[in-house]
Amino acid sequence: MGRNSSSNGAPGSAAPRIALTVGDPCGIGPELVLRALLDERASAARILVVGDEDVLRRTARELRVRWPFAAVDAEPPRSTRWTRPHLLAVPGQAGEDGYGTGLISAPGGRAARAEVERAVQLARDGLVEALVNGPVHKESLALAGNGDDAGGHTDLVARLCEVRDVGTLLVAEGFAVGLLTGHLPLRDALRKVRTSRIVDRLGLYDGYLRRVVGRPPRTVVLALNPHRGEGGRVGTEELREIGPAVEAARERGLLVSGPVGGAEGFARAADGEFDLVLAMHHDQAVVPLRMLRGFDSAAVTVGLPFVRATVTHGPAMDLAGRGTASPASLLRAIETAARHAAAFASTVAGEDNGRAPGATRSEVREVPAD
Amino acid sequence: MGRNSSSNGAPGSAAPRIALTVGDPCGIGPELVLRALLDERASAARILVVGDEDVLRRTARELRVRWPFAAVDAEPPRSTRWTRPHLLAVPGQAGEDGYGTGLISAPGGRAARAEVERAVQLARDGLVEALVNGPVHKESLALAGNGDDAGGHTDLVARLCEVRDVGTLLVAEGFAVGLLTGHLPLRDALRKVRTSRIVDRLGLYDGYLRRVVGRPPRTVVLALNPHRGEGGRVGTEELREIGPAVEAARERGLLVSGPVGGAEGFARAADGEFDLVLAMHHDQAVVPLRMLRGFDSAAVTVGLPFVRATVTHGPAMDLAGRGTASPASLLRAIETAARHAAAFASTVAGEDNGRAPGATRSEVREVPAD
Repeated sequence: MGRNSSSNGAPGSAAPRIALTVGDPCGIGPELVLRALLDERASAARILVVGDEDVLRRTARELRVRWPFAAVDAEPPRSTRWTRPHLLAVPGQAGEDGYGTGLISAPGGRAARAEVERAVQLARDGLVEALVNGPVHKESLALAGNGDDAGGHTDLVARLCEVRDVGTLLVAEGFAVGLLTGHLPLRDALRKVRTSRIVDRLGLYDGYLRRVVGRPPRTVVLALNPHRGEGGRVGTEELREIGPAVEAARERGLLVSGPVGGAEGFARAADGEFDLVLAMHHDQAVVPLRMLRGFDSAAVTVGLPFVRATVTHGPAMDLAGRGTASPASLLRAIETAARHAAAFASTVAGEDNGRAPGATRSEVREVPAD
Repeated sequence: MGRNSSSNGAPGSAAPRIALTVGDPCGIGPELVLRALLDERASAARILVVGDEDVLRRTARELRVRWPFAAVDAEPPRSTRWTRPHLLAVPGQAGEDGYGTGLISAPGGRAARAEVERAVQLARDGLVEALVNGPVHKESLALAGNGDDAGGHTDLVARLCEVRDVGTLLVAEGFAVGLLTGHLPLRDALRKVRTSRIVDRLGLYDGYLRRVVGRPPRTVVLALNPHRGEGGRVGTEELREIGPAVEAARERGLLVSGPVGGAEGFARAADGEFDLVLAMHHDQAVVPLRMLRGFDSAAVTVGLPFVRATVTHGPAMDLAGRGTASPASLLRAIETAARHAAAFASTVAGEDNGRAPGATRSEVREVPAD
């Protein structure tokens, strides 16, 4: 640390290597990446940024941010001894007209997709230990024409890894929040509040966090209805689905309690009583966490063959180019990915033969042929 | 203020008069009331506590809290010139065995109910300008045998006022949160996310807050689904119900925007951009507010013939008698009730002939005969 003239420390050569995609070039991704790399916290990892060199150079110039890269490469460094940030330049996707800052566009989506494809390959080839993704726009991805049901960022990564049924942990200072379901209409998410699904997700997240925190995680499951359903008077899911799931998980030896109301569960987790809060639907996880931690959280995908973290916000097209967006979530994603990759490196050889952090064999399923 | 030797100031003789019920004697209500009365903030109102003298004296003795009352009365003070807290003693409901501290019980429920009945009558008789209710337990109320579908605290007050279809505003520093629905299973609450209901609640809360803040309130309506439904890909309520309701309210001249996601709506309200956040279901209102403000919020019932505020927590039987519970919500309820009552006193004569603050005639409906 601190052996060069930069304001940030440089990571040691044993720090995990992370492939960091810039995200949609039309959003705040480029400025967040540049600013994050100059932050001391980024020295938790050795970072290989995957992105468009022209976009990053222009952004650095316009926002007067110091160029943070030790080198710009066309191929990933074959040496394992690099420490300061490298840029792996991917070919531009915009043509002569450039990208339209702040616009949802096919070129933006193509660039974001090309980065993700390259970065996933680096991770699968073992050239990095973890993947961190800057923000993309789902509509830009769709405009870029994936040729299949586009889905979102995580869907894309999972498909490239030939994995389905991944889970999401939102990781913040002190605790994580697990999602039972992701981007579903609330009406449909309610139908997924089933004992079997809750037990399955508890097992998935417990298995992952057990290795990260080095002991069985202490978990609390949230209720779905107001006042925990008031003994069945205000909804029955607590009695019929959630309570039995907690019991089943406990019988398997997991340290699980609940269901408790959302306010209580988050307050107790923030007080250090729990490592994991399992939420019954997307906004039950996302909104209280944002209130508690602002943008200082990251989303971790569980069930992939490598560690992957991403920001918990979008590309904020309306803020792009101003230099005002906060890199807090990106820094948290970098720090989290580095920490998790290090934890898996220390346990993976003995326990899992190098396979899929956080996923047992049964959870890593191949996508059906059609 | 400060003309006597107590640590708190005494309110002036023009301060609003508030009837304050202690709530369930087996919970934290007695200790919260005693401690709140000794807090400077309670001097926003002239407070007539309605409760069991023996319970309050025992609590004051056991927790070594100074007796805060200027007088104990069997009938409400007929003079309008009293300033320091009075206790209107209601007959005990426990018999010789006393109440069981920390227990859910019929005597506790009977005592709570007797207080509420007395306090509502005081408000309806014009002997106080507002009602503040300490915490009750719904199960204790049910055990006390109301002889009808018990419901909760607010249901009881509304029934005593022969009013139905009241609304709830959660009031915190700087902004309020309106509920579209209350204690319903989430599944049923989703079915109430309808344009007509949203427009109706916007009108109800706007009418109330307009008089409290002295200008048209700036309102934001929350989305129901993740990411505001992503243009219909993740739920249709935003396009079919919520968006049209916002448009309809704007056409009526209300200052309404949205729908926006829960995190954005609360963050912008906390930044001072909005006076009112309209939430689509109970926990979407309650949980983020608790994360932002802790217990420093009060629930206001809109549609009654007088101002009514209550605490946003229960009687916390497990904490009763320890003296550790926070009176933050009760103090916020007192301060809010005093402020709202003063606002209504200054506008009510000209605008509504003394009728129903926050409710137009059409919203104050009699309960059907059976």
